[in-house]
Amino acid sequence: MLKCTSCEREYSLRNAYQRCECGEPLELELFKSVPGIGRRVWERFSGFFPFELRPELSLGEGDTPLTKAKKLSRELGVKLYLKNETLNPTWSFKDRGTYLGIHRALQLGFKKIGTVSTGNMAASVAAYGARAGLETYVLVSSDIAEEKLKALALYGARIIKVQGDYGEIYYKSLKIGREKGIYFINSDDPFRVEGYKSMSFEIIEEVTPDYVVVPTSSGGLFRGIVKGFLELKESGLIEELPCFVVVQAEGCSPICKAFNGGKEKIERFENPHTIAHAIENPYPPSGNGVLRLLRGLKGLCVTVSDEEILEAQRELGREGLFVQPASATGIAAIRKLREKGIIEDGKIKENSRVVSILTGSGLKTLSHVERGRIKECWLEELEECLGYR
Amino acid sequence: MLKCTSCEREYSLRNAYQRCECGEPLELELFKSVPGIGRRVWERFSGFFPFELRPELSLGEGDTPLTKAKKLSRELGVKLYLKNETLNPTWSFKDRGTYLGIHRALQLGFKKIGTVSTGNMAASVAAYGARAGLETYVLVSSDIAEEKLKALALYGARIIKVQGDYGEIYYKSLKIGREKGIYFINSDDPFRVEGYKSMSFEIIEEVTPDYVVVPTSSGGLFRGIVKGFLELKESGLIEELPCFVVVQAEGCSPICKAFNGGKEKIERFENPHTIAHAIENPYPPSGNGVLRLLRGLKGLCVTVSDEEILEAQRELGREGLFVQPASATGIAAIRKLREKGIIEDGKIKENSRVVSILTGSGLKTLSHVERGRIKECWLEELEECLGYR
Repeated sequence: MLKCTSCEREYSLRNAYQRCECGEPLELELFKSVPGIGRRVWERFSGFFPFELRPELSLGEGDTPLTKAKKLSRELGVKLYLKNETLNPTWSFKDRGTYLGIHRALQLGFKKIGTVSTGNMAASVAAYGARAGLETYVLVSSDIAEEKLKALALYGARIIKVQGDYGEIYYKSLKIGREKGIYFINSDDPFRVEGYKSMSFEIIEEVTPDYVVVPTSSGGLFRGIVKGFLELKESGLIEELPCFVVVQAEGCSPICKAFNGGKEKIERFENPHTIAHAIENPYPPSGNGVLRLLRGLKGLCVTVSDEEILEAQRELGREGLFVQPASATGIAAIRKLREKGIIEDGKIKENSRVVSILTGSGLKTLSHVERGRIKECWLEELEECLGYR
Repeated sequence: MLKCTSCEREYSLRNAYQRCECGEPLELELFKSVPGIGRRVWERFSGFFPFELRPELSLGEGDTPLTKAKKLSRELGVKLYLKNETLNPTWSFKDRGTYLGIHRALQLGFKKIGTVSTGNMAASVAAYGARAGLETYVLVSSDIAEEKLKALALYGARIIKVQGDYGEIYYKSLKIGREKGIYFINSDDPFRVEGYKSMSFEIIEEVTPDYVVVPTSSGGLFRGIVKGFLELKESGLIEELPCFVVVQAEGCSPICKAFNGGKEKIERFENPHTIAHAIENPYPPSGNGVLRLLRGLKGLCVTVSDEEILEAQRELGREGLFVQPASATGIAAIRKLREKGIIEDGKIKENSRVVSILTGSGLKTLSHVERGRIKECWLEELEECLGYR
């Protein structure tokens, strides 16, 4: 059964419902189960997923490292753990959701799938579509960067550049898809959300966090992570929920604007502009859903500037981790919450266990990276160049 | 004890020996042990490594997926398994070797490390150097592509572009490093080879291959994989060794030229030229070592053209895997060995279990990728663009 996250209206699983008639996203009920043994998170937590997951559709997503950040932990005065989602098959967290979404498409008998994306999700759906042998349509926005198109090309999907409002493409693709037999696995598809839960399960296998910090665009990832922790609590596997922190870029922060402004619903963010393109969605389809979760669970919503994002990206590099700008927002947010807090009791306490999600690889957005200082040297002078005489 | 792979002269582990006075590479003896339980390959196979491996130096390398290739298996008439090394912390297999190399540098008391690389290894050593808090020197060749410099920049290493023969830089860096206190973890460092063994251990946990196909440049990776299987055999964990296949690009194939020409030693390959830059080493430092292994173990050496490489890269894309050209060489080689064989009994038999190593991510070499056919469309016409009227 799928249930609306807002009005609680129920929908049968036999049809390809993705959103409620009221306009809000649908979601599966909470799963209660017991973890088992297994090499992969899909095996260990099989009782928490809506169907038996098929290894032949997998590309090896999930079971990513949780890396303790030494320097940043010291500097920020917390125990900082980085969930490194850049080590997924298409180098972003999207693969976990796509894996579940592909199962759903096949379960419903679809022969074609699609998605609407500016980058990470496009590559992910193209790859899993190829893997499953499905005809795959990827709708990209007309200003997509060349490097992102190239990262897609080899998977063989049908790529369509669409001129028009990005938010509208999302809704229109769902409608046309339903009519024409294409299952669009868009950003906050209910089954995509189920896939993202796996991250929470892996985190809890290694650490019990006080805070979980999530770069947030459409809201699908945040909803998935929260649902995972809720299921762990319902199943008696954890006693308390962590504090959930949504991070957005200052230049595109519709959720934080609504949350911190005490609004009931998000509004379209006008003239969005940030270097963190992966989270630059001015009208996120799960925005209201995220608002409800933040209110219900006393979460926090933090915005960070492009300058803070680039600084955090450099700092992660010094830990040995090269991430795309969107992934660095979490570090910038933690610094803000440590230094001043954003609301009265929103300050992260010293020595807290904080998990931040690194959503995608820095290789995906090389174009904005500066190559830095490079010394030129003749072989004969190598000794001197290495700083010695 | 380190032993020369050619003249068998022995060297103490107390000093930073990397190559024998005779010019050939050194290697640790074979380890015999029993696997245990553990989440990570470093734990499960801890008895096979020369020191206790420290989690705080790790970035989560290893334990990569072994993905069964459906379409290619069918097409090539073999059971094809792809070891996906693109899911390492810097998105290439180099991280396994760097992880061990860093331990070695610290064990010997070095405060500085370095490497000589055109791409993958540069990023890997820069990342692990940052992680360990060591001053890190990366020597790159003067014609390095801009995208590779950018992939390095954020780790904060000292990057030096060296004008001069790439092979000479390798030897000169080892010499200067020893004198000046910089441990150069170059391509076939004995401890790097120890790190690569872990791949063999993981493979054997999932499948017993008849063939293992290895894109080969310096020879370090090939030596590591072979050493891993030899240790598994010595330890009684496998009964027979697989057939090992070295793959090189036609435009830079010094090892295959010597092997298939019946030579004792490799010679410098003149005017190297291939799209697979990651394996474009005209005078590989472990070339003779690889020759000896191929002869001793009745291995095969196969060359493939740039055209075949690009075709194989596309085919891997259709399996959902986007790799750099060097990683696609294995598939091209398997096709060759299936169709005609390269020597009388070198033909891969039907239904053989074949493992091919996917060495690095396609995102690393986007510049040569063609963006393919892209349809442009107005939102209003989306329905028609999706192929319907």
